[in-house]
Amino acid sequence: MTDKIILEAIGTIRTPFEKPVGTPIQGLLDRKAEGTVILRDDLVEGLKDLEGFSHLILVYHFDRVEGFDLVQKPYLEDEDRGMFAIRSPRRPNPIGVTVVSLLGIDGNRVSVRGVDMLDGTPLLDIKPYVPDFDSVADARTGWLEARLETYNQGEPVRTTADDRFHK
Amino acid sequence: MTDKIILEAIGTIRTPFEKPVGTPIQGLLDRKAEGTVILRDDLVEGLKDLEGFSHLILVYHFDRVEGFDLVQKPYLEDEDRGMFAIRSPRRPNPIGVTVVSLLGIDGNRVSVRGVDMLDGTPLLDIKPYVPDFDSVADARTGWLEARLETYNQGEPVRTTADDRFHK
Repeated sequence: MTDKIILEAIGTIRTPFEKPVGTPIQGLLDRKAEGTVILRDDLVEGLKDLEGFSHLILVYHFDRVEGFDLVQKPYLEDEDRGMFAIRSPRRPNPIGVTVVSLLGIDGNRVSVRGVDMLDGTPLLDIKPYVPDFDSVADARTGWLEARLETYNQGEPVRTTADDRFHK
Repeated sequence: MTDKIILEAIGTIRTPFEKPVGTPIQGLLDRKAEGTVILRDDLVEGLKDLEGFSHLILVYHFDRVEGFDLVQKPYLEDEDRGMFAIRSPRRPNPIGVTVVSLLGIDGNRVSVRGVDMLDGTPLLDIKPYVPDFDSVADARTGWLEARLETYNQGEPVRTTADDRFHK
Protein backbone atom coordinates (compact mmCIF):
# COMPACT_ATOMS: atom_id res chain seq x y z
CA MET A 1 0.00 0.00 0.00
CA THR A 2 2.96 2.32 0.12
CA ASP A 3 4.01 1.77 -3.48
CA LYS A 4 4.16 4.93 -5.51
CA ILE A 5 2.13 5.11 -8.68
CA ILE A 6 3.71 7.33 -11.30
CA LEU A 7 1.52 8.90 -13.97
CA GLU A 8 2.19 11.30 -16.78
CA ALA A 9 -0.22 13.73 -18.45
CA ILE A 10 -1.42 12.59 -21.88
CA GLY A 11 -2.68 16.02 -22.84
CA THR A 12 -4.13 19.26 -21.58
CA ILE A 13 -7.67 20.47 -21.04
CA ARG A 14 -8.32 24.01 -22.24
CA THR A 15 -11.25 25.72 -20.55
CA PRO A 16 -12.50 29.27 -20.06
CA PHE A 17 -11.56 29.14 -16.37
CA GLU A 18 -8.23 30.69 -15.52
CA LYS A 19 -8.70 30.73 -11.79
CA PRO A 20 -10.93 28.95 -9.29
CA VAL A 21 -13.16 31.95 -8.54
CA GLY A 22 -16.20 31.72 -10.82
CA THR A 23 -15.52 28.22 -12.18
CA PRO A 24 -18.63 26.00 -12.22
CA ILE A 25 -18.69 23.66 -9.23
CA GLN A 26 -19.53 20.62 -11.31
CA GLY A 27 -19.91 20.24 -15.04
CA LEU A 28 -23.51 19.16 -14.92
CA LEU A 29 -24.69 22.00 -12.71
CA ASP A 30 -23.67 24.36 -15.51
CA ARG A 31 -23.46 22.25 -18.65
CA LYS A 32 -22.79 25.16 -20.94
CA ALA A 33 -19.05 25.76 -20.60
CA GLU A 34 -17.13 24.48 -23.62
CA GLY A 35 -13.56 23.30 -23.61
CA THR A 36 -11.00 21.49 -25.72
CA VAL A 37 -9.00 18.43 -24.82
CA ILE A 38 -5.64 18.59 -26.56
CA LEU A 39 -4.24 15.09 -26.77
CA ARG A 40 -0.58 14.17 -27.18
CA ASP A 41 0.04 13.63 -30.89
CA ASP A 42 1.31 10.07 -30.50
CA LEU A 43 -2.00 8.96 -28.94
CA VAL A 44 -4.42 10.28 -31.56
CA GLU A 45 -5.05 6.84 -33.06
CA GLY A 46 -6.59 5.87 -29.71
CA LEU A 47 -9.50 8.25 -30.44
CA LYS A 48 -10.81 5.90 -33.17
CA ASP A 49 -14.50 5.01 -32.65
CA LEU A 50 -14.93 7.63 -29.91
CA GLU A 51 -17.18 9.83 -32.06
CA GLY A 52 -20.08 7.36 -31.68
CA PHE A 53 -20.30 8.25 -27.99
CA SER A 54 -22.27 11.30 -26.88
CA HIS A 55 -20.50 11.63 -23.51
CA LEU A 56 -17.01 11.07 -22.17
CA ILE A 57 -15.44 10.69 -18.76
CA LEU A 58 -12.42 12.93 -18.35
CA VAL A 59 -9.92 11.87 -15.70
CA TYR A 60 -7.45 14.59 -14.81
CA HIS A 61 -4.99 15.95 -12.28
CA PHE A 62 -6.04 18.75 -9.93
CA ASP A 63 -2.62 20.32 -10.42
CA ARG A 64 -3.27 23.54 -8.53
CA VAL A 65 -4.16 22.14 -5.15
CA GLU A 66 -1.85 20.97 -2.41
CA GLY A 67 -2.67 18.74 0.52
CA PHE A 68 -6.08 17.85 1.91
CA ASP A 69 -8.20 17.93 5.06
CA LEU A 70 -10.22 14.98 6.29
CA VAL A 71 -13.26 17.21 6.76
CA GLN A 72 -13.91 20.24 4.60
CA LYS A 73 -16.69 22.75 4.01
CA PRO A 74 -18.12 22.07 0.53
CA TYR A 75 -19.12 24.95 -1.74
CA LEU A 76 -22.81 24.11 -1.52
CA GLU A 77 -23.08 24.27 2.24
CA ASP A 78 -21.55 25.73 5.35
CA GLU A 79 -21.13 22.45 7.28
CA ASP A 80 -18.01 20.35 7.66
CA ARG A 81 -18.33 17.21 5.57
CA GLY A 82 -16.08 14.19 5.23
CA MET A 83 -13.61 14.51 2.35
CA PHE A 84 -14.88 11.34 0.67
CA ALA A 85 -18.47 12.66 0.80
CA ILE A 86 -17.64 15.80 -1.22
CA ARG A 87 -16.08 16.43 -4.62
CA SER A 88 -13.45 18.92 -3.45
CA PRO A 89 -10.12 18.85 -5.33
CA ARG A 90 -8.23 18.67 -2.02
CA ARG A 91 -7.83 14.89 -1.75
CA PRO A 92 -4.94 12.53 -0.92
CA ASN A 93 -4.76 11.69 -4.64
CA PRO A 94 -5.86 14.85 -6.46
CA ILE A 95 -7.64 13.15 -9.35
CA GLY A 96 -10.77 14.65 -10.87
CA VAL A 97 -13.51 12.84 -12.77
CA THR A 98 -15.95 14.85 -14.91
CA VAL A 99 -18.61 13.70 -17.37
CA VAL A 100 -18.74 15.94 -20.47
CA SER A 101 -20.65 15.93 -23.76
CA LEU A 102 -18.61 15.22 -26.87
CA LEU A 103 -19.04 17.93 -29.49
CA GLY A 104 -16.49 16.82 -32.07
CA ILE A 105 -13.01 15.52 -32.77
CA ASP A 106 -10.51 17.17 -35.09
CA GLY A 107 -7.09 15.53 -35.13
CA ASN A 108 -5.76 15.69 -31.59
CA ARG A 109 -8.41 18.18 -30.46
CA VAL A 110 -11.56 16.92 -28.77
CA SER A 111 -14.26 19.56 -28.25
CA VAL A 112 -16.47 19.03 -25.23
CA ARG A 113 -19.22 20.77 -23.26
CA GLY A 114 -19.62 20.71 -19.50
CA VAL A 115 -16.06 21.42 -18.39
CA ASP A 116 -15.52 22.49 -14.80
CA MET A 117 -11.75 22.25 -14.47
CA LEU A 118 -9.17 25.03 -14.66
CA ASP A 119 -7.56 25.97 -17.97
CA GLY A 120 -4.41 23.97 -18.59
CA THR A 121 -5.43 21.03 -16.39
CA PRO A 122 -3.29 17.94 -17.13
CA LEU A 123 -5.35 15.15 -18.74
CA LEU A 124 -4.82 11.61 -17.43
CA ASP A 125 -7.44 9.61 -19.33
CA ILE A 126 -10.48 9.71 -21.59
CA LYS A 127 -13.08 6.96 -21.19
CA PRO A 128 -16.32 6.44 -23.09
CA TYR A 129 -19.40 7.14 -20.95
CA VAL A 130 -21.70 4.12 -20.90
CA PRO A 131 -25.07 4.47 -19.07
CA ASP A 132 -25.21 0.72 -18.38
CA PHE A 133 -21.97 1.08 -16.40
CA ASP A 134 -22.00 4.67 -15.21
CA SER A 135 -25.55 5.98 -14.86
CA VAL A 136 -27.63 5.58 -11.70
CA ALA A 137 -30.45 8.06 -12.10
CA ASP A 138 -32.10 7.49 -8.71
CA ALA A 139 -29.02 7.37 -6.48
CA ARG A 140 -29.41 8.91 -3.02
CA THR A 141 -27.09 11.83 -2.33
CA GLY A 142 -27.03 12.34 1.43
CA TRP A 143 -26.25 15.87 2.55
CA LEU A 144 -26.30 17.10 -1.05
CA GLU A 145 -29.92 16.11 -1.61
CA ALA A 146 -31.55 19.17 -0.08
CA ARG A 147 -29.03 21.45 -1.80
CA LEU A 148 -29.65 19.96 -5.23
CA GLU A 149 -33.42 20.06 -4.80
CA THR A 150 -33.18 23.76 -4.11
CA TYR A 151 -31.08 24.16 -7.25
CA ASN A 152 -33.39 22.06 -9.43
CA GLN A 153 -36.37 24.12 -8.27
CA GLY A 154 -34.62 27.15 -9.71
CA GLU A 155 -33.80 28.74 -6.39
CA PRO A 156 -30.50 30.55 -6.10
CA VAL A 157 -27.64 28.31 -5.00
CA ARG A 158 -23.91 28.81 -5.22
CA THR A 159 -22.83 27.23 -8.53
CA THR A 160 -19.37 28.68 -8.91
CA ALA A 161 -16.22 28.19 -6.91
CA ASP A 162 -14.15 30.49 -4.78
CA ASP A 163 -10.51 29.98 -3.89
CA ARG A 164 -10.93 27.96 -0.70
CA PHE A 165 -9.47 24.74 -2.10
CA HIS A 166 -6.55 26.17 -4.07
CA LYS A 167 -3.04 27.38 -3.38
CA MET B 1 2.97 18.04 -20.06
CA THR B 2 5.90 15.79 -19.17
CA ASP B 3 5.64 16.37 -15.43
CA LYS B 4 5.29 13.19 -13.46
CA ILE B 5 2.32 12.87 -11.14
CA ILE B 6 3.06 10.72 -8.12
CA LEU B 7 0.20 9.01 -6.33
CA GLU B 8 0.02 6.60 -3.44
CA ALA B 9 -2.67 4.02 -2.65
CA ILE B 10 -5.01 5.07 0.16
CA GLY B 11 -6.31 1.55 0.68
CA THR B 12 -7.06 -1.74 -0.97
CA ILE B 13 -10.15 -3.14 -2.66
CA ARG B 14 -10.98 -6.72 -1.69
CA THR B 15 -13.07 -8.56 -4.25
CA PRO B 16 -13.88 -12.19 -5.10
CA PHE B 17 -11.76 -11.95 -8.27
CA GLU B 18 -8.27 -13.32 -7.94
CA LYS B 19 -7.46 -13.36 -11.62
CA PRO B 20 -8.83 -11.67 -14.72
CA VAL B 21 -10.51 -14.77 -16.12
CA GLY B 22 -14.15 -14.74 -15.00
CA THR B 23 -14.15 -11.22 -13.51
CA PRO B 24 -17.23 -9.20 -14.54
CA ILE B 25 -16.43 -6.84 -17.39
CA GLN B 26 -18.05 -3.85 -15.75
CA GLY B 27 -19.70 -3.54 -12.36
CA LEU B 28 -23.08 -2.65 -13.71
CA LEU B 29 -23.29 -5.57 -16.16
CA ASP B 30 -23.14 -7.87 -13.15
CA ARG B 31 -24.12 -5.81 -10.14
CA LYS B 32 -24.09 -8.69 -7.72
CA ALA B 33 -20.42 -9.06 -6.80
CA GLU B 34 -19.69 -7.70 -3.35
CA GLY B 35 -16.39 -6.32 -2.17
CA THR B 36 -14.80 -4.39 0.66
CA VAL B 37 -12.80 -1.22 0.46
CA ILE B 38 -10.20 -1.21 3.23
CA LEU B 39 -9.15 2.36 3.85
CA ARG B 40 -5.90 3.48 5.44
CA ASP B 41 -6.59 4.02 9.15
CA ASP B 42 -5.45 7.64 9.18
CA LEU B 43 -8.11 8.58 6.58
CA VAL B 44 -11.20 7.09 8.25
CA GLU B 45 -12.46 10.49 9.42
CA GLY B 46 -12.86 11.40 5.73
CA LEU B 47 -15.71 8.85 5.46
CA LYS B 48 -17.97 11.09 7.60
CA ASP B 49 -21.33 11.79 5.86
CA LEU B 50 -20.68 9.18 3.16
CA GLU B 51 -23.38 6.83 4.45
CA GLY B 52 -26.12 9.12 3.11
CA PHE B 53 -25.05 8.27 -0.43
CA SER B 54 -26.36 5.12 -2.11
CA HIS B 55 -23.55 4.93 -4.69
CA LEU B 56 -19.84 5.71 -4.80
CA ILE B 57 -17.26 6.22 -7.50
CA LEU B 58 -14.15 4.15 -6.84
CA VAL B 59 -10.98 5.37 -8.52
CA TYR B 60 -8.21 2.81 -8.50
CA HIS B 61 -4.96 1.61 -10.04
CA PHE B 62 -5.00 -1.22 -12.59
CA ASP B 63 -1.86 -2.61 -10.97
CA ARG B 64 -1.67 -5.85 -12.93
CA VAL B 65 -1.44 -4.46 -16.43
CA GLU B 66 1.57 -3.15 -18.25
CA GLY B 67 1.67 -0.92 -21.29
CA PHE B 68 -1.12 -0.22 -23.76
CA ASP B 69 -2.06 -0.38 -27.42
CA LEU B 70 -3.72 2.46 -29.30
CA VAL B 71 -6.29 0.06 -30.73
CA GLN B 72 -7.46 -3.03 -28.88
CA LYS B 73 -10.15 -5.67 -29.23
CA PRO B 74 -12.70 -5.13 -26.43
CA TYR B 75 -14.23 -8.08 -24.60
CA LEU B 76 -17.68 -7.45 -26.04
CA GLU B 77 -16.65 -7.58 -29.67
CA ASP B 78 -14.09 -8.91 -32.07
CA GLU B 79 -13.25 -5.61 -33.79
CA ASP B 80 -10.30 -3.33 -33.14
CA ARG B 81 -11.47 -0.23 -31.30
CA GLY B 82 -9.62 2.91 -30.26
CA MET B 83 -8.25 2.68 -26.73
CA PHE B 84 -10.18 5.78 -25.60
CA ALA B 85 -13.45 4.25 -26.91
CA ILE B 86 -13.19 1.15 -24.70
CA ARG B 87 -12.81 0.58 -20.97
CA SER B 88 -9.79 -1.73 -21.17
CA PRO B 89 -7.30 -1.49 -18.28
CA ARG B 90 -4.42 -1.19 -20.78
CA ARG B 91 -4.16 2.61 -20.94
CA PRO B 92 -1.30 5.14 -20.76
CA ASN B 93 -2.41 5.94 -17.20
CA PRO B 94 -3.89 2.71 -15.82
CA ILE B 95 -6.63 4.29 -13.73
CA GLY B 96 -10.01 2.60 -13.32
CA VAL B 97 -13.32 4.25 -12.47
CA THR B 98 -16.21 2.06 -11.27
CA VAL B 99 -19.60 3.04 -9.83
CA VAL B 100 -20.64 0.77 -6.94
CA SER B 101 -23.54 0.64 -4.46
CA LEU B 102 -22.69 1.43 -0.87
CA LEU B 103 -23.83 -1.33 1.50
CA GLY B 104 -22.36 -0.10 4.75
CA ILE B 105 -19.39 1.39 6.58
CA ASP B 106 -17.72 -0.13 9.62
CA GLY B 107 -14.62 1.69 10.80
CA ASN B 108 -12.15 1.62 7.90
CA ARG B 109 -14.14 -0.99 5.96
CA VAL B 110 -16.61 0.11 3.29
CA SER B 111 -18.82 -2.68 1.94
CA VAL B 112 -19.93 -2.24 -1.65
CA ARG B 113 -21.75 -4.10 -4.40
CA GLY B 114 -20.87 -4.05 -8.08
CA VAL B 115 -17.11 -4.54 -7.93
CA ASP B 116 -15.34 -5.55 -11.13
CA MET B 117 -11.69 -5.10 -10.19
CA LEU B 118 -9.18 -7.73 -9.12
CA ASP B 119 -8.73 -8.61 -5.46
CA GLY B 120 -6.08 -6.43 -3.83
CA THR B 121 -6.47 -3.54 -6.28
CA PRO B 122 -4.89 -0.33 -4.89
CA LEU B 123 -7.52 2.32 -4.10
CA LEU B 124 -6.78 5.90 -5.18
CA ASP B 125 -9.99 7.73 -4.29
CA ILE B 126 -13.60 7.43 -3.18
CA LYS B 127 -16.06 10.04 -4.46
CA PRO B 128 -19.77 10.36 -3.74
CA TYR B 129 -21.91 9.50 -6.79
CA VAL B 130 -24.22 12.40 -7.64
CA PRO B 131 -26.75 11.87 -10.47
CA ASP B 132 -26.87 15.60 -11.21
CA PHE B 133 -23.14 15.47 -12.01
CA ASP B 134 -22.57 11.88 -13.10
CA SER B 135 -25.72 10.40 -14.60
CA VAL B 136 -26.64 10.70 -18.28
CA ALA B 137 -29.29 8.05 -18.81
CA ASP B 138 -29.72 8.57 -22.54
CA ALA B 139 -26.09 8.88 -23.63
CA ARG B 140 -25.22 7.35 -27.01
CA THR B 141 -22.64 4.58 -26.85
CA GLY B 142 -21.31 4.11 -30.37
CA TRP B 143 -19.99 0.63 -31.13
CA LEU B 144 -21.19 -0.64 -27.73
CA GLU B 145 -24.84 0.14 -28.44
CA ALA B 146 -25.70 -3.01 -30.39
CA ARG B 147 -23.78 -5.16 -27.90
CA LEU B 148 -25.57 -3.71 -24.89
CA GLU B 149 -28.97 -4.00 -26.54
CA THR B 150 -28.34 -7.68 -27.07
CA TYR B 151 -27.39 -7.98 -23.41
CA ASN B 152 -30.39 -6.02 -22.15
CA GLN B 153 -32.70 -8.24 -24.21
CA GLY B 154 -31.37 -11.17 -22.23
CA GLU B 155 -29.41 -12.70 -25.08
CA PRO B 156 -26.11 -14.34 -24.25
CA VAL B 157 -23.19 -11.94 -24.36
CA ARG B 158 -19.73 -12.21 -22.89
CA THR B 159 -19.88 -10.60 -19.44
CA THR B 160 -16.67 -11.87 -17.89
CA ALA B 161 -13.07 -11.14 -18.73
CA ASP B 162 -10.28 -13.32 -20.02
CA ASP B 163 -6.57 -12.61 -19.63
CA ARG B 164 -6.01 -10.59 -22.81
CA PHE B 165 -5.29 -7.30 -21.03
CA HIS B 166 -3.12 -8.60 -18.20
CA LYS B 167 0.47 -9.61 -17.67
